Amino acid sequence: MPKIPNERLKRYLGLKRDFSEERYINLHPIQRAGVLTPEARKAILEFGDGYSTCDWCQPKAARLDAIERPPIAQFMEDLATFLGMDVARVVTRCREAKFIAFMMLGKPGDTVVVDSLAHYSTYTAAELAGLNVKEVPHGDYPEFKVDLNAYANKIEEVKKETKKLPAVVLLTHVDYLYGNLNDATAVGKICKEYGVPLLLNAAYTAGVMPIDGKKMGADIIVSSGHKSWAASAPTGILAMKKDIADDVLERSKIVGDWSGRKFAAKEYALLGCTVMGAPLITLMASFPHVVERVERWQEEVEKARYLVDQLERIEGTRQLGIKPKQHTLIHIESDGLHKISETHKRRGFFLYDELRERKIVGIQAGLTKHFKLNTYGLSLDKVKNVANAFKEIAEKYGLKIG
Amino acid sequence: MPKIPNERLKRYLGLKRDFSEERYINLHPIQRAGVLTPEARKAILEFGDGYSTCDWCQPKAARLDAIERPPIAQFMEDLATFLGMDVARVVTRCREAKFIAFMMLGKPGDTVVVDSLAHYSTYTAAELAGLNVKEVPHGDYPEFKVDLNAYANKIEEVKKETKKLPAVVLLTHVDYLYGNLNDATAVGKICKEYGVPLLLNAAYTAGVMPIDGKKMGADIIVSSGHKSWAASAPTGILAMKKDIADDVLERSKIVGDWSGRKFAAKEYALLGCTVMGAPLITLMASFPHVVERVERWQEEVEKARYLVDQLERIEGTRQLGIKPKQHTLIHIESDGLHKISETHKRRGFFLYDELRERKIVGIQAGLTKHFKLNTYGLSLDKVKNVANAFKEIAEKYGLKIG
Repeated sequence: MPKIPNERLKRYLGLKRDFSEERYINLHPIQRAGVLTPEARKAILEFGDGYSTCDWCQPKAARLDAIERPPIAQFMEDLATFLGMDVARVVTRCREAKFIAFMMLGKPGDTVVVDSLAHYSTYTAAELAGLNVKEVPHGDYPEFKVDLNAYANKIEEVKKETKKLPAVVLLTHVDYLYGNLNDATAVGKICKEYGVPLLLNAAYTAGVMPIDGKKMGADIIVSSGHKSWAASAPTGILAMKKDIADDVLERSKIVGDWSGRKFAAKEYALLGCTVMGAPLITLMASFPHVVERVERWQEEVEKARYLVDQLERIEGTRQLGIKPKQHTLIHIESDGLHKISETHKRRGFFLYDELRERKIVGIQAGLTKHFKLNTYGLSLDKVKNVANAFKEIAEKYGLKIG
Repeated sequence: MPKIPNERLKRYLGLKRDFSEERYINLHPIQRAGVLTPEARKAILEFGDGYSTCDWCQPKAARLDAIERPPIAQFMEDLATFLGMDVARVVTRCREAKFIAFMMLGKPGDTVVVDSLAHYSTYTAAELAGLNVKEVPHGDYPEFKVDLNAYANKIEEVKKETKKLPAVVLLTHVDYLYGNLNDATAVGKICKEYGVPLLLNAAYTAGVMPIDGKKMGADIIVSSGHKSWAASAPTGILAMKKDIADDVLERSKIVGDWSGRKFAAKEYALLGCTVMGAPLITLMASFPHVVERVERWQEEVEKARYLVDQLERIEGTRQLGIKPKQHTLIHIESDGLHKISETHKRRGFFLYDELRERKIVGIQAGLTKHFKLNTYGLSLDKVKNVANAFKEIAEKYGLKIG
């Protein structure tokens, strides 16, 4: 039996995060909208143990999404309704939701058309499903706007090159790099004309802003519970229109060649049950709050715009991506801060150090020229605090404030 | 924007489990070894928020398994060592680990040889990967012992029928139905002779009993954190020998056709990062306890055997599967209890009612003739309490106690 020295085991005792929401302002670009609600914090302890959701699993279906105590089956319905779709499942990650859709709607060698600012996990999901990607271009600096009209050209190109339509068209609703919001309705119309299913990656939008899937012409909406629904990782959302759901959630047909065993209740692309514990429960516990908070989205956008206005007062500093901001994920370019880093003994880390001294964290340590931050859910006072900290640091090192 | 009525939202407030470890003895067959340690209960709150593991993600790799604060990279090493393997990853479920292995080691149309008591998720994982299953038979009532020597015949059959070797051979170390322990070493030898990789499904064994993967001849070991490692769902373990790991964890090769983007650091079968939050941390926090508890496995087996002895004293009641028990998952057949249910006004639910009155839960409500239970981690006093409860109920309804 292999042995692990006690010295090595000690490092797993008393695991702590360095930054708590109480003591720090955390601007981490992917963390803001995944902070648990107080309700979710209670629920995570209640359902922390292993298969905690399975106390009342009904043997007939023996499927997580059919469990009514806790109200998981009910939640699947409410989740679909909330997104303006027909059927919903919670899977292990947004990327798994994309993979499942690619796998079930495409065959190896098929093509998926994607925006060229799609997250890496869109590409790896296509790769694992054996699909090729055809990218829709984006524009140049400083907007980097995806050319949505080009979706039609790209579908045409796929038709010409492969003699068939793309298996799926994917649009990233808000991208991870610039936080640009794309007009899903425009792409929905194009997809409808060609009869190609539209998968909307709403990882940065569903859960923080109002989403009406069918109205936008989406056939599938995927999202991330830990990114945008005040839930623990790993949780992904897969919501679909009825007809697509029949394909994506196809029941198992495999038969044991000796035993004759069958598993006809199981949705095999999900591998049966998915998130059978705490993270699903946090998603459910935060859901009433999420339903309410999306109505206040415009206030969140206003705070982001305020911060951009303030940061752009710093010499040589500008927001990249479409203006004005339509999302709280912000990409900043700063020649000014970068200039300081060139002569500072801590190089680019000076910005991290200075911010941390002011109890502000979440911007990648070492970055000055390009960095991302997110203001979602911060009070206006905290956002002002962040703006002042940046201006103070800039002034300290001799940059002008406009 | 679709609306959810407040009435419906109320059901997500104050989510509670019906049974707590403090107030009930829970015999649920899949829950016993997934009960969190006190250390994991502290850690789950600390790391409850969304992407809580990502505070110190290093931009070069940008991969969960490379994060050193909290000590995730270190844990990957210790986990591999603990299982007697070279490389380990934490994925979202044991079934996902099987799927990843099938997908990366097989091509659609290939065959995987599996024992005929394999869990349904083994079949759905093969189905999603496009693999056929060839089952190794099991023996008859009452032992249902898998015929391990038949692995060789089945590999031969695959060779004959498909002109190639199976992509993978899978053995379920302990099955979910009878809790039979299979001799992995015997299958390891056969696989070595044929040069076929052996995947050992240790969902019911790793984390509760000592496992030395290489010694048993396993190329891949998969397990379930929420089933057997005192961790929250969903957590799966994928541990491999070095050479197999190179194939299974192949790096992404996909290239954006317009952007030229590449993602060469990403292990694409994992879709990049996997369990980027609380459940992974519970697995790590419980690890020192798990390392210690596997040494006490024989005590756990003794308690299971004691309970079987006591239950078999009840008229018309016997343990199915191999005897004596080598695992704490127990399958009971009781003609006696079933006879009572035939005339009881609550039918089969009488057993559930009677047990629950005695603060014992976890046996599927409605079952009497065949039911499963698990004694893992219960004190001897509690196991005695369970034995006495069963005998008391049996006597109350006129069954003889031997």
